[in-house]
Amino acid sequence: MTGKKVNEIQKGDRARFSKTVSESDIYLYAGITGDFNPAHVNQSYAEKTFFQSRIAHGLLSAGFISTVIASKLPGPGTIYIKQELNFTAPVYIGDTITAFVEVLEVSVPENSVILKTICKNQKDEVVVEGQAIVSPPKG
Amino acid sequence: MTGKKVNEIQKGDRARFSKTVSESDIYLYAGITGDFNPAHVNQSYAEKTFFQSRIAHGLLSAGFISTVIASKLPGPGTIYIKQELNFTAPVYIGDTITAFVEVLEVSVPENSVILKTICKNQKDEVVVEGQAIVSPPKG
Amino acid sequence: MTGKKVNEIQKGDRARFSKTVSESDIYLYAGITGDFNPAHVNQSYAEKTFFQSRIAHGLLSAGFISTVIASKLPGPGTIYIKQELNFTAPVYIGDTITAFVEVLEVSVPENSVILKTICKNQKDEVVVEGQAIVSPPKG
Amino acid sequence: MTGKKVNEIQKGDRARFSKTVSESDIYLYAGITGDFNPAHVNQSYAEKTFFQSRIAHGLLSAGFISTVIASKLPGPGTIYIKQELNFTAPVYIGDTITAFVEVLEVSVPENSVILKTICKNQKDEVVVEGQAIVSPPKG
Repeated sequence: MTGKKVNEIQKGDRARFSKTVSESDIYLYAGITGDFNPAHVNQSYAEKTFFQSRIAHGLLSAGFISTVIASKLPGPGTIYIKQELNFTAPVYIGDTITAFVEVLEVSVPENSVILKTICKNQKDEVVVEGQAIVSPPKG
Repeated sequence: MTGKKVNEIQKGDRARFSKTVSESDIYLYAGITGDFNPAHVNQSYAEKTFFQSRIAHGLLSAGFISTVIASKLPGPGTIYIKQELNFTAPVYIGDTITAFVEVLEVSVPENSVILKTICKNQKDEVVVEGQAIVSPPKG
Repeated sequence: MTGKKVNEIQKGDRARFSKTVSESDIYLYAGITGDFNPAHVNQSYAEKTFFQSRIAHGLLSAGFISTVIASKLPGPGTIYIKQELNFTAPVYIGDTITAFVEVLEVSVPENSVILKTICKNQKDEVVVEGQAIVSPPKG
Repeated sequence: MTGKKVNEIQKGDRARFSKTVSESDIYLYAGITGDFNPAHVNQSYAEKTFFQSRIAHGLLSAGFISTVIASKLPGPGTIYIKQELNFTAPVYIGDTITAFVEVLEVSVPENSVILKTICKNQKDEVVVEGQAIVSPPKG
């Protein structure tokens, strides 16, 4: 149940996680965070916006990045230090989002890894992109 | 149902949102994102870690920032452009987290606002901090 | 799967339903309705209030009345016409609430029944009380 | 984090809250309350009823009234005293419900406010209507 240690990680290593975002995901996420922005939970309102329908919370999709980091690269025991996120396109109910994580830099002395983190939808459009810094599990 | 327009926002404006993080919040968040890191959902494992108990997902607490942005400052109609997050301390089950948002810069021509975004626990410890860029509602 | 018809119901008929109210019940209820009153979801705030701890939403406990009506008296097929609710005491996390329903009046020509509806906690304190009018299933 | 005091409230003051009711809202509400009336959770049954499809629990929509009271009018710190509810039309999955609250009477000596409380769907049909009595936050 322990992820990769810093000396087991190399630049270019990759992992991913995919999920179709459901209406119930968005509704539960609103319920956890208290973010009832009508763009997320009010279809009548959303139809009159630029996006024309309810969209997912940006940080919901970003959560799939954390899933990759925590389960695969580096995996369990990793400490999340920093995450930068640029929200580049909307995520609609029914979109299938894939979070891609790729190792950009490894620092053994600092026990840290810089990751490129991107989420794309089923049309290969980038919906979230940025970088993360994580500390892989030790000994 | 529309938030503040860019010309209604001033440097120094503030808003906040608070919630006690429950075990069910963490479990539902795990269920939505698929992030079943044992640090979040395995108490036996967590007791042997540095944190000594299950902790919340970093992006869960960060979600409260989005709640402030979406509901209060600037409010409904805001588009989330960018979020930087530094995870500085763990959040335990039962911690009461307050997300604070403060306007750092306003650009009327670009219709954008830079926000300082901080989450603190009930002991006034910073658990998440960073900056966001958002685009307030138009017209 | 059909409840009692109006001619099968008599003044004095009774039914009940009990459940221990959990933190997750309150949190999910907040998530469904958007009612994030700090009295329900912010323990730090709640400790400074008259109630001294987080309490359940009044309408959450009232929901147990609907459970009795829909499942037992009159049962499936019943149409809910009216509900009066007086909130008389707080419900805390861990309280076991019992909803009691008793038939006060039956009108066969109007196909309607007036019900006394009370919720009590494990100390036999009334937390919600009032009356309901329902229309039992036909033919 | 405190709502309006009784002397800050005037007859005619209004507030509202809107949400599209999802299938997951109805299912979670059933799970919290135990109200598994087939009209709410059994589509095969519901198709043979007068309503022809699954409908939301009446008290679920009524919960949006509580959201307005708790978050806006009077806001945090308000104590819910009484709520009368008449269920006037069904709410279907996908309906966008708006809860409207309007101040009918203010009693400063009794620290109480009488509210008109109405929920409408996206077609402007009244689905729930009634009155509430609340006690605004003190000092």
